[in-house]
Amino acid sequence: MIQCSILTIGDEICIGQIVNTNAAWIAAHCSEIGCEVIAHSIVGDDSEEIKSELKRLSQISDYVFLTGGLGPTHDDVTKKVLCEYFNDSYIWHEPTLLWLQDFYARRGRPLTERNKLQAFLPSVCEVLSNERGTAPGMLFQKDGTIVVSMPGVPREMMYIMEQHIFPRIEQHFFLQHQTRNMYRTLMTIGVAESDLADMIGDVSKFLDPHSSLAFLPSYSGVRLRIGAHDVHTDKAIEILNSLEKILRQKAGKFIYGSDNISIEKTVAQLLTERGETVSVAESCTGGKIGAAFTDLSGSSAYFIGGVLAYSNTVKVQELGVKSEEIEQYGAVSEEVARSMSQGVRHKLQTDYGIAATGVAGPDGGSDEKPVGTVWIALSTPSTTITKRYIFGNDRAANRDRTVGAAFDMLYRYLKSRNDDNSGN
Amino acid sequence: MIQCSILTIGDEICIGQIVNTNAAWIAAHCSEIGCEVIAHSIVGDDSEEIKSELKRLSQISDYVFLTGGLGPTHDDVTKKVLCEYFNDSYIWHEPTLLWLQDFYARRGRPLTERNKLQAFLPSVCEVLSNERGTAPGMLFQKDGTIVVSMPGVPREMMYIMEQHIFPRIEQHFFLQHQTRNMYRTLMTIGVAESDLADMIGDVSKFLDPHSSLAFLPSYSGVRLRIGAHDVHTDKAIEILNSLEKILRQKAGKFIYGSDNISIEKTVAQLLTERGETVSVAESCTGGKIGAAFTDLSGSSAYFIGGVLAYSNTVKVQELGVKSEEIEQYGAVSEEVARSMSQGVRHKLQTDYGIAATGVAGPDGGSDEKPVGTVWIALSTPSTTITKRYIFGNDRAANRDRTVGAAFDMLYRYLKSRNDDNSGN
Repeated sequence: MIQCSILTIGDEICIGQIVNTNAAWIAAHCSEIGCEVIAHSIVGDDSEEIKSELKRLSQISDYVFLTGGLGPTHDDVTKKVLCEYFNDSYIWHEPTLLWLQDFYARRGRPLTERNKLQAFLPSVCEVLSNERGTAPGMLFQKDGTIVVSMPGVPREMMYIMEQHIFPRIEQHFFLQHQTRNMYRTLMTIGVAESDLADMIGDVSKFLDPHSSLAFLPSYSGVRLRIGAHDVHTDKAIEILNSLEKILRQKAGKFIYGSDNISIEKTVAQLLTERGETVSVAESCTGGKIGAAFTDLSGSSAYFIGGVLAYSNTVKVQELGVKSEEIEQYGAVSEEVARSMSQGVRHKLQTDYGIAATGVAGPDGGSDEKPVGTVWIALSTPSTTITKRYIFGNDRAANRDRTVGAAFDMLYRYLKSRNDDNSGN
Repeated sequence: MIQCSILTIGDEICIGQIVNTNAAWIAAHCSEIGCEVIAHSIVGDDSEEIKSELKRLSQISDYVFLTGGLGPTHDDVTKKVLCEYFNDSYIWHEPTLLWLQDFYARRGRPLTERNKLQAFLPSVCEVLSNERGTAPGMLFQKDGTIVVSMPGVPREMMYIMEQHIFPRIEQHFFLQHQTRNMYRTLMTIGVAESDLADMIGDVSKFLDPHSSLAFLPSYSGVRLRIGAHDVHTDKAIEILNSLEKILRQKAGKFIYGSDNISIEKTVAQLLTERGETVSVAESCTGGKIGAAFTDLSGSSAYFIGGVLAYSNTVKVQELGVKSEEIEQYGAVSEEVARSMSQGVRHKLQTDYGIAATGVAGPDGGSDEKPVGTVWIALSTPSTTITKRYIFGNDRAANRDRTVGAAFDMLYRYLKSRNDDNSGN
């Protein structure tokens, strides 16, 4: 197995001003091609801390990827640290100098002395060209470990990884006939993590040291990530196929897709395939269901619009909810949710109408309808489905879970229609 | 100075399937209250690696914050690791057991044996209640270092930090009379970062080694973060007051609030004070403006509802936009935005109507109206204001910037009305 680690350098990352998307990108891509990512670390722009972490990570990794600290200002120290760490001295690197002259000439800007210093590089490193910026990557080798230093600008780092590093790692696998990891993710919806775990049962019956299963929960469902570890490519695919088969036998009815496809995207595909349209009537979500539909480009093919009926007046005037229904059952009720979904479906002449009304919190709950109580309704050409949920105390979470539940309801209906048709 | 570090646990973070937003949040908030964040580290769900990193970080930190690995399934190992690391054994923690019984009862779900295990906790830890989930936080103390373990679900981690940890750190500063960093953030809207920088001018004239100023741009405006560094609390407040005074003199008319108050919250306060109401007519944002209004609890006082007019049919039928307007000017035009805002204001009988129509992208642009073109309109009792924006190529960013611009427009109008009144 090829093992790698990631060392991110920069005060702005350390104090949380910037989220470390570079490390996630490198880790995801290294994992995808089969390396094991064993550690990430972040340190500020401090020479001693950088050296200490570089030493620690070098001892446990085949590759250490460094990002950040290669800019032209006083607080960028990475190059100096690497030169000291590898007991090296600087030389002028001619190809980089030519690149810089060209880079600035094309932009009509002068090549200043400060900018020229990007070509003053440690003599032992292999220089990795960076066609998206002025700081090249640097590759060092010592005691069997490869240390790669890259700029922190995401698209420059990505260029260097894609052009120089991933091909080298593929070669590394090939030449050394190395084993690897491989992953697949199965997406579930409409089932709690613990219920899913009970359904799947004792994992030791089907896992061994070369296979794994992880549960990754979110508000829109639990992802099941299966893994094959430290095996050759053919064997890895065989393991993943076998694990997927087992999980589909145990929990197949909750699995809606694989490899991180969202439930929104899945519903969008089903609606597009069927040439059908949808509208929304939102109370407690205030627009979040519509926002989720329209996050996807191309959503105008199936998403027509909706009514945000936050006040009861709007529910009555725009959606045809009867005042007596609200008086008798309350605005958060099966009856009102049903009328809202039917009302918006008729008003906007869509195939489906989805409605949500609930007590998002933190106030407004009662003994009968505590905070977190939500009614969701789906009106279709033939019927109206309703379901009550009782979520928690947190307003934002309740709203997010309502969106997830609304997509779950529509997904199940569309899926059952597709299954009916394919059965005929 | 109190020093802290962050240890994130989980294969899904290590392999880059999830971006580590938890670490950024903790780092940002710890920095804000005055701690120095000195290191972050991520390891997979591996007992030995967790212990080794916990040991390393404990040696250099006053606080080590762990997130992740507290779920109910087999791949969650953090609790076991901590129990071993602190040479501890488990006990049944009664308050947590009662909380779990209540938690599941309220949801009408059974408390399974697996879920009950969340109350089986190391005996020496201080249990930190988690009202947003089933896994409590755990606080350990050893050799002067405090180790806090929290669930990886962001809202649950945030609850524990806000309820239990930040107050404790404040006490720590107070009792030990430590020097600290302290920050304040002034929120601006409606001005570009570079224009703001020109307005503020040469910062060396008012900054010294114990003070700082950072520009933090986002889609809804630029935040100015002023800082006082390595001084006692009284002195820190004095430095911040003096910096705030200088910045308000230079750029006061763009500053709408301080300390991360959102423009949405500011607008909500103004509407509530004035006893006025608002409705929305959304095309390209598909519900995001309504969602932003209703993110705030209490929004029913001023947010009445709206129409999601994603298709042109809805714009015509529900908002009274004339078909000829769409034919002549296009759906993305000043005329259509104006009609949408007036239409929703009249239909829902609100004081204000806000409309947005635009080319969110990635497709649908033309030479005349490139991707990123957005018209926003605000209809008021006396007038209708319109404004065109040309944002960029990214769909999600364009939608977020449209929401920010809509709130900016309403904020300015409400502010000018308040200023008029106070001047009379």
